[in-house]
Amino acid sequence: MALSPKRAAESLAVMTQYILPSDANPLNAAFGGRVLEWIDICGAIAAGRHCRNAVVTASMDELHFHAGIKVGWVVTLRSRVLATFKSSMEVGVMVTAENPLTGEHHLTTSALLTFVALNSNGGRALVPQLLLETPAEKAASEAAHAGRKARLERKGKVAEWTQLFDATPQG
Amino acid sequence: MALSPKRAAESLAVMTQYILPSDANPLNAAFGGRVLEWIDICGAIAAGRHCRNAVVTASMDELHFHAGIKVGWVVTLRSRVLATFKSSMEVGVMVTAENPLTGEHHLTTSALLTFVALNSNGGRALVPQLLLETPAEKAASEAAHAGRKARLERKGKVAEWTQLFDATPQG
Amino acid sequence: MALSPKRAAESLAVMTQYILPSDANPLNAAFGGRVLEWIDICGAIAAGRHCRNAVVTASMDELHFHAGIKVGWVVTLRSRVLATFKSSMEVGVMVTAENPLTGEHHLTTSALLTFVALNSNGGRALVPQLLLETPAEKAASEAAHAGRKARLERKGKVAEWTQLFDATPQG
Amino acid sequence: MALSPKRAAESLAVMTQYILPSDANPLNAAFGGRVLEWIDICGAIAAGRHCRNAVVTASMDELHFHAGIKVGWVVTLRSRVLATFKSSMEVGVMVTAENPLTGEHHLTTSALLTFVALNSNGGRALVPQLLLETPAEKAASEAAHAGRKARLERKGKVAEWTQLFDATPQG
Amino acid sequence: MALSPKRAAESLAVMTQYILPSDANPLNAAFGGRVLEWIDICGAIAAGRHCRNAVVTASMDELHFHAGIKVGWVVTLRSRVLATFKSSMEVGVMVTAENPLTGEHHLTTSALLTFVALNSNGGRALVPQLLLETPAEKAASEAAHAGRKARLERKGKVAEWTQLFDATPQG
Amino acid sequence: MALSPKRAAESLAVMTQYILPSDANPLNAAFGGRVLEWIDICGAIAAGRHCRNAVVTASMDELHFHAGIKVGWVVTLRSRVLATFKSSMEVGVMVTAENPLTGEHHLTTSALLTFVALNSNGGRALVPQLLLETPAEKAASEAAHAGRKARLERKGKVAEWTQLFDATPQG
Repeated sequence: MALSPKRAAESLAVMTQYILPSDANPLNAAFGGRVLEWIDICGAIAAGRHCRNAVVTASMDELHFHAGIKVGWVVTLRSRVLATFKSSMEVGVMVTAENPLTGEHHLTTSALLTFVALNSNGGRALVPQLLLETPAEKAASEAAHAGRKARLERKGKVAEWTQLFDATPQG
Repeated sequence: MALSPKRAAESLAVMTQYILPSDANPLNAAFGGRVLEWIDICGAIAAGRHCRNAVVTASMDELHFHAGIKVGWVVTLRSRVLATFKSSMEVGVMVTAENPLTGEHHLTTSALLTFVALNSNGGRALVPQLLLETPAEKAASEAAHAGRKARLERKGKVAEWTQLFDATPQG
Repeated sequence: MALSPKRAAESLAVMTQYILPSDANPLNAAFGGRVLEWIDICGAIAAGRHCRNAVVTASMDELHFHAGIKVGWVVTLRSRVLATFKSSMEVGVMVTAENPLTGEHHLTTSALLTFVALNSNGGRALVPQLLLETPAEKAASEAAHAGRKARLERKGKVAEWTQLFDATPQG
Repeated sequence: MALSPKRAAESLAVMTQYILPSDANPLNAAFGGRVLEWIDICGAIAAGRHCRNAVVTASMDELHFHAGIKVGWVVTLRSRVLATFKSSMEVGVMVTAENPLTGEHHLTTSALLTFVALNSNGGRALVPQLLLETPAEKAASEAAHAGRKARLERKGKVAEWTQLFDATPQG
Repeated sequence: MALSPKRAAESLAVMTQYILPSDANPLNAAFGGRVLEWIDICGAIAAGRHCRNAVVTASMDELHFHAGIKVGWVVTLRSRVLATFKSSMEVGVMVTAENPLTGEHHLTTSALLTFVALNSNGGRALVPQLLLETPAEKAASEAAHAGRKARLERKGKVAEWTQLFDATPQG
Repeated sequence: MALSPKRAAESLAVMTQYILPSDANPLNAAFGGRVLEWIDICGAIAAGRHCRNAVVTASMDELHFHAGIKVGWVVTLRSRVLATFKSSMEVGVMVTAENPLTGEHHLTTSALLTFVALNSNGGRALVPQLLLETPAEKAASEAAHAGRKARLERKGKVAEWTQLFDATPQG
């Protein structure tokens, strides 16, 4: 039985974080790895809201840090499903930082992630298709499909540079 | 004055982590966000070893989770500089997971990251060029330059899907 | 010069969290202390958005855990300023938990917090008044003022039970 | 069979913490949410020592931050059961901060928490009554019973302000 | 001017911790590294209470894990200064674990640590001598002095086994 | 059936860590307890690689902090099995710190740990003997056996100083 298509807006997740010293790098700005952790969680919540299954991260691409984030600033992550495949979903995550004393905010990071839906046995689950209602939604879905095709082609080439590590002790 | 070129192997960083329950997702495997955090740190150490400057993460691409990692397993991250640009470096990070009871290990994650070198004023610093000594090192550098060109072209398109969030309350 | 009054809705903060094993108590549910930590942050962001000053927590009251939250569930915290005093604000925080496999969600926790606004010297800063636009907003503000009056009266009695610790070694 | 009453002093828990940068807010003082987390744990240990059951936090009230705590200071939390109900207990927690260079210490935070005792099936368990041996213990217990009565009356009103969030997207 | 001697009991520090899943190893018991972290903090608080200076850990010895600690158990660490040297102190730390459902507790870990007192310039500070009031206190101090002598002799031999790492890549 | 002896070098584990503000003490250097946590993990990985069983920490000795480690520095931990006993192993851990701007590094900490091998029932497992191939390896093993003998003799004396805590309330 086919799953009913769902609207992309239903998958939206909003996550606000306050940058504490425990999130900082030695330059007193948000440590990149912590932001990556939040992007992964925020993206996973959107993917889970779309498919209502457990999800695991399959890939991340096009992550760009556009600007730094200071300790004491407020960060807002927003995510939504951009495109669906058979048992996976592409999710876009946008991160903005807000100066709490002025309310000014700007884009700091954006990323595309792919999540795979798992059923209760750990196998792949089918995901509902996306209802594409606006030209912007259609364009984003088409771009995601094109990007996925290019990514899968590039993925085959991963083995090349990883061979540079062959002589390195595992240790 | 030009900086002396440096061998890629000098940038190598090896990071071993033991997967504790505090690193787990609800499926009792390593939580993806935690692995991303370690990839960012391991990559930054290799970049810093190459340029001997403070570095900040600029982008991440081609991150693929090839297999899950169970709680109790040992994870080894290895990173090295693959290519240099004017004031930035592309770093490859490979993650392998080891079953501690058998010693078997397999590739679980790989990623390409770009780091920017900063001088003590926070401005961009020049980075030493890479001595490319083997055909594999030359191929990896060329692939990185080609990938960077494609990535910069794609980066201009980021604005498109982020517009989907315009109607979303910031809050 | 008087500060312009502001609408309560401008202070709204939405924080989504995914319950990981590192957030759990031994019963495999969200550990209460972690939820309290998030409530404090979410409330502080709303207070900061209203006054655009640094804020510190002054008190918490009426915190009720209505239901438990399982590992793997998604938690949404929402906060907004309910009432303002001279240099402090009362903020309400509502926490709902969502079963990610069904989308069902229910109220799990609610709390009232008071935050004090600080200027850059660490002294108390005046906060903008609240524009009360609906009967519900007016009722909430009135209840907050009444609650504050009762709370300040009770605060004087704190010393009584704390005397029970006088014979206890500091430790 | 009735449980034997127990002395309040048997429930005493003393928890010392050293404020590290990872516990700090951007003002270089202890982050309020971290102190709340410790209060919850310290209170739960006292409640568990009284009833010898698993316990979960039901409510927190009368939490007041009387003074800030600097990074590098030593914090002592002390908790004890103040009153018992059928299957729940009210616990008082006192937090003092100590300047490690002078030994001076002062009250920084106090709070009243209610914990519910659970049996091994997750149902409510009866808790032993409290032996009230001194006038101060009797007064604290009576105040707790009066406070509980007022709190339960106020709890019914929670629904009112939470309705302000009805129009807010869950996301 | 000589510092006034101080009683050992004044240095006592008591730290209670509740073992959460985030403190666990994959065997569902307290992870050894976490217990070591708490021992270091608890010992440092006792040393700081004795000398009222900043202190840093210089060495740890005779750490023995006598028994495991389960998730959900309550751990009590107690520390006190056992002996003083010119600008350093030997501190004993005892760790007991308590089954919260029965109240039974047993010794799980013990350790001896040496801390150095630092003045505000980062140089070594003199520490007050210890008033030894009981035969047990005198015996503990004498054992600490004897142990320190043996330790300093052994310390010279450290270089030997560390040479095994000379051929190991730093990376 | 006897287990085949194994080379010590096979147990080598290399762990690199970047000191973030969340790892710092109030003096802006690596907090000792965090370094102890990493030493425990790094040692456990080497022990597990030698015996291919679950391992638990039994003791730590000869831990010396030779020099401090600043925030922003890179720390490398290296561990290997030095000696084997019936069902336990002695592991040496060396910690060096690297100034990332100059590449200079120096020994900061060293420690000897004993780990016990556990089978799947939680009982003690036999561990493979160590192939001692060089004079340095033989010397390290002999020193470990001598140290173990002395340690077991000293262990019996632990009870003495722990009696000082007998009059201290558990709470």
